[in-house]
Parts: sequence; structure tokens; C-alpha cells
Amino acid sequence: MLSEFDLIKQYFRRPRPGRAVLGIGDDCALLAPTPGMQMAISTDMLVEGRHFFAGAEPRMLGHKCLAVNLSDLAAMGARPLGFTLALSLPAADPAWLEGFSSGLFALADLHDCELIGGDTTRGPLNICITVFGEVAPGQALRRDAARAGDDIWISGTLGDARLALAGYLSEVALDPATHAQAATRMHMPTPRVALGQALARLAAPPAALDISDGLAGDLGHILAASRVGATLDADALPAGPMLARQPQALRRRFTAAGGDDYELCFAARRADREAVLAAAEASGTAVTRVGTIDAQPGLRFVDGAGAPLDLQVGGWDHFSGS
Amino acid sequence: MLSEFDLIKQYFRRPRPGRAVLGIGDDCALLAPTPGMQMAISTDMLVEGRHFFAGAEPRMLGHKCLAVNLSDLAAMGARPLGFTLALSLPAADPAWLEGFSSGLFALADLHDCELIGGDTTRGPLNICITVFGEVAPGQALRRDAARAGDDIWISGTLGDARLALAGYLSEVALDPATHAQAATRMHMPTPRVALGQALARLAAPPAALDISDGLAGDLGHILAASRVGATLDADALPAGPMLARQPQALRRRFTAAGGDDYELCFAARRADREAVLAAAEASGTAVTRVGTIDAQPGLRFVDGAGAPLDLQVGGWDHFSGS
Repeated sequence: MLSEFDLIKQYFRRPRPGRAVLGIGDDCALLAPTPGMQMAISTDMLVEGRHFFAGAEPRMLGHKCLAVNLSDLAAMGARPLGFTLALSLPAADPAWLEGFSSGLFALADLHDCELIGGDTTRGPLNICITVFGEVAPGQALRRDAARAGDDIWISGTLGDARLALAGYLSEVALDPATHAQAATRMHMPTPRVALGQALARLAAPPAALDISDGLAGDLGHILAASRVGATLDADALPAGPMLARQPQALRRRFTAAGGDDYELCFAARRADREAVLAAAEASGTAVTRVGTIDAQPGLRFVDGAGAPLDLQVGGWDHFSGS
Repeated sequence: MLSEFDLIKQYFRRPRPGRAVLGIGDDCALLAPTPGMQMAISTDMLVEGRHFFAGAEPRMLGHKCLAVNLSDLAAMGARPLGFTLALSLPAADPAWLEGFSSGLFALADLHDCELIGGDTTRGPLNICITVFGEVAPGQALRRDAARAGDDIWISGTLGDARLALAGYLSEVALDPATHAQAATRMHMPTPRVALGQALARLAAPPAALDISDGLAGDLGHILAASRVGATLDADALPAGPMLARQPQALRRRFTAAGGDDYELCFAARRADREAVLAAAEASGTAVTRVGTIDAQPGLRFVDGAGAPLDLQVGGWDHFSGS
């Protein structure tokens, strides 16, 4: 007899034959790596009340859980291959499972990333995805590859997700339409998978990461790994369309240290400016040049006129602590 | 400034250079697969109060969380390469982290299986490990490979973990020494990694799985995948040393449908009997022949004299439900 939790698995079984040599239903999945390629692997665990609100809309949650993992592959320049899903659920709610799995698979299909295995259990809501991709040797976008003189670039726009959080927390008064549009950026981030792969094909693959905890804090990881510093032009940071209508102080703060952006931040050779723009064009992703890597350690902000700014920004600690 | 949860990561960083091209500290880990090998991948999520008792001894818990994943690789015949660890913790308790990480790494080192990435967050205790191994094409121990006439084998012994649970639940009265020794089997299972790899080298790799939910239920997965049936000799099932001293009815029930055994059950060609025994010898693992695969669907038990038995056993649903 099938248990309630065996039935859950039905929501995650798909008819079409996939990339895996052997998929769901044995002790392990089997993947046949492309000869000569390296495998990129990342894991993220999302907990209710910390990474998403209790009662989060399940379709958007399914999207987001995979999106944050695909964003890690994008930040490595890797092509997505597949993922595993481990799910702890307080109960088997068909409406929740239907929504969650449809949001998850819509994004998975968009990136040809196959669910190859998983585990389901009863417990407090917890979603753990491990994602696999591949990248050619020497092409991975590593955090330790930045050099003094490199340009610093950002994909897309920043801060709308942080603006949405500010609306939820009543830090900022937002009209309902603005809040709803900003919230979509928070709940449905776009992993920059095509851009990451295009950047990986540059002769000197940029240093890169995805911005999940705010630009200032995350860029700090590149600076530490590469033993360099940086200067960012606070007024060049591209604000999301909803944040762009807010006062300058809020724009500067939420673009420089927002959270949940899932845009790429990368440092590329100055000589590669045209190549970066071509990669952005080819991948249909806007990019903006926002600063420079310095030999001098530390992160400095300047305004559009080049005058020093003290933004007093730190990383973003999810809802409250990491 | 390092947050409490950044500090946690220190418990899982290790000095020695590893197999990964790029390990913990970037967006993804990078692995360089051995050319021509397939990658075996499995994920397991363990939740407090379901897969282990609240307050479980952290060193044994660290062992067990990785052991159940290595057991999946063993059941596939794969050689362990590495694993990711995602950990949700209610608080950063140094004593717990010290114990958990030392139990985890002791087993990881034994199998040369490297921690290549992870995630830590605050939340209800939840441990999700995804493990990676490799196996030559055509050598994986698949569940669908059993044929009528095959011998059914078991590694090690069965039922001591179930006996320990019976002691905890006061289903059976056990003296403290017996309970303690049985409990060690429950909390510190031995993944049969070397045996799995040795079996994978047979000319006809056996059908195999690891017994986590009880032999009867788990063997059913091989029978379903291979579209065959089986007859098991209930009196041939090897009872663990503590269970072996219990009455026959309990021995039969707990060997046939215990749980948390993490022994391998495999179906090998009758012509490979000597080869199976040689593989067992080479891997230092006892194996016992316990039955036969039949063309007739269903699972039948007989006693040592060949007379039918109705054991009325089902799978084991962890503590209460899957």
C-alpha cells in the first residue's frame, strides 16, 4: 500500500525520458558526464520563516527554490544538467504540491535541468536542492580571479526585492501596485544562466558570484578571495523599476546592500568591455558597469561625481540572522 | 564581522587539499569526473523526531547521516567521491557541532569521501546530505537486473537495529547491555561500500539495494523493478548478535521486516556463487544466501524445512509514517 509520502513522489515523477542514464526510482541516479567537462555542484537549504514567509504561494516558492540554485550555477558559468530535491513537509497538501511542483518544473524546463532524484519526509517545511552543471576546465567563473584595474559589472537591476521586504516590514510605505511588482522580483528571481555561460567563454573568464545577500557584502567575497579592493559608483548601480521611483538615499542603500537580488556581479578585464557587452547581448541580459577593482584593500563608494560616500552598508542577513 | 552561522562553517572546513578542483568557498564546487565513468548521485534528508530521536548523540548522528548516503552508493556499486551537507540548526552549540562534525568526518575519511560544499541556516534540526560516487558504465547495481533463478543474498546481519527500537519503545524487555549493543547497530550502521564495488565488477552485476525500511518491503522494490517474485528462507536470514538470542518469532519478524539495517540485499546469478563469495571475502564482508528469485510474482517465506510461512510483515515506516 502506498503511504501518503509515496503519493507525494507522484507529483515529481515526469513521463519524458531525460538526460540521466538512470533517474528517480533506484538507490542513486546515474549521470554520464560529458567527456572532458568539470562538474559544478551547489546545495541550498530553504527554511520557512527564514528564507521565505510562512504560507508563501507554492508556485512562486517552487520557482524560487530552484532559481537560487540555478543562480549558483550561473555564477560559476556552468550549464545546468540536473538537480535533486529533498523535501520535508508538515503534511501532504495536494494543492500545495501541485503549485510547488509546477513552479519548480516550469523553471527547470526553461533551463533543461532535470530532476534526477530526491527524498520526501514529514517534518517542518524545509526544501533542500542540490544542483549539477558542467563547465569546461579553466572556464569557471571563480571568485579569486579579479585583478586590479578590472571593471565591475552587474546584471539586470538591484534592490526591488529589498524594497518589497521593506514594504512587508512597513519600513517604507508603498502603494499596493508598487509593492506587488517589487514582490514579484523577490519571489520570482531570474537566474542569469545564459549570461554566466557566455561570460565563461571569454578568453579571461571574469571573477563572478551571484548577489544573494546584498552587493556590498557579496562583492566582499570576491575581494577577499582575490586579495584586492574595489570602488563602486553608488549612482551607477542600476535600481529596479520600482526602486527607481524612490528617494535617492533609499535607492543607494537598497542597490548597494539589498538582498535576494540573484543578479551576477562580475569583474572582467578592462580590455574585455566589448566582449562583455557582446556576451550580454547574446544572452539577452542587460549589464551595467558600476566600478573598478583596486589594488588597495577594502570597498569604497563614490557618487556620480567621484566624491567619496559613506553608505554604512552591510550584508543582508535574510529575515534575521543568516 | 562573522555571524554565528559563519562560525559554524569553521567546523566543516578542513586543511588538507582534496579531490575537488574547487571546494567550499565559491558559488559551486568543481569536480573533475574520471573520464568514461558515470556519476552516481543520491540525496537523503534526516529530520529530528522522525529519522533520529531528539537529543541524539551528535557524534553518532554525524556518522549515521553520512552512512545512510554512503549506503546508497554501496547499493549502486559506486566508489564514493564527495558529498554536500546542508544543515538547519536551532542554535549554534559548539559541543554539538564538534561531536557531529567529528562523527561525520571519521566516516568520510574512512571512505575517502570529501565534503565539497554545503549550506548552514537556522531552523528546526534537519540534515540533508547529497553524495556523489562513480561507477563504470554497465556495472551499476540496478534494481531491475534480477532474473528468475537468481540467488538472493544479504550482507552482514539483520534486525539488531529493530531490536534496539523495540527496546526504546518498550515492545520488548531488554537488559541494558543487550540494548546498548543493539542500539549501536541502530545509530552506527556500516555502509557496505567495498562489497558494493566488488559486486559491480562481476560479469553480470547483481540487482541490489540497501535495506533501510526492512528486507521484505525493500526486496519488493527489486521484485517490482525486475518484474519477478521471490521465495525467502526465514530461518536462513542472518540475525544480528543481539537478536540471535531472542525467541524465534521475534527473530523471524525483525530479520524479515526490521528497519535501519543498511545491509545490502542483492540477486546474483546462480552461476556466480563462487564469484559472490570471493567478492565478499575480498571486501571483508560476510554474505548469506537467503532465497531465490522466482518467475512467479509476489514474495513468499518458507521455513528451514521449506514449509510455507505467513510472517505478515510489511515495510518499516521509520518512527511513524514515512
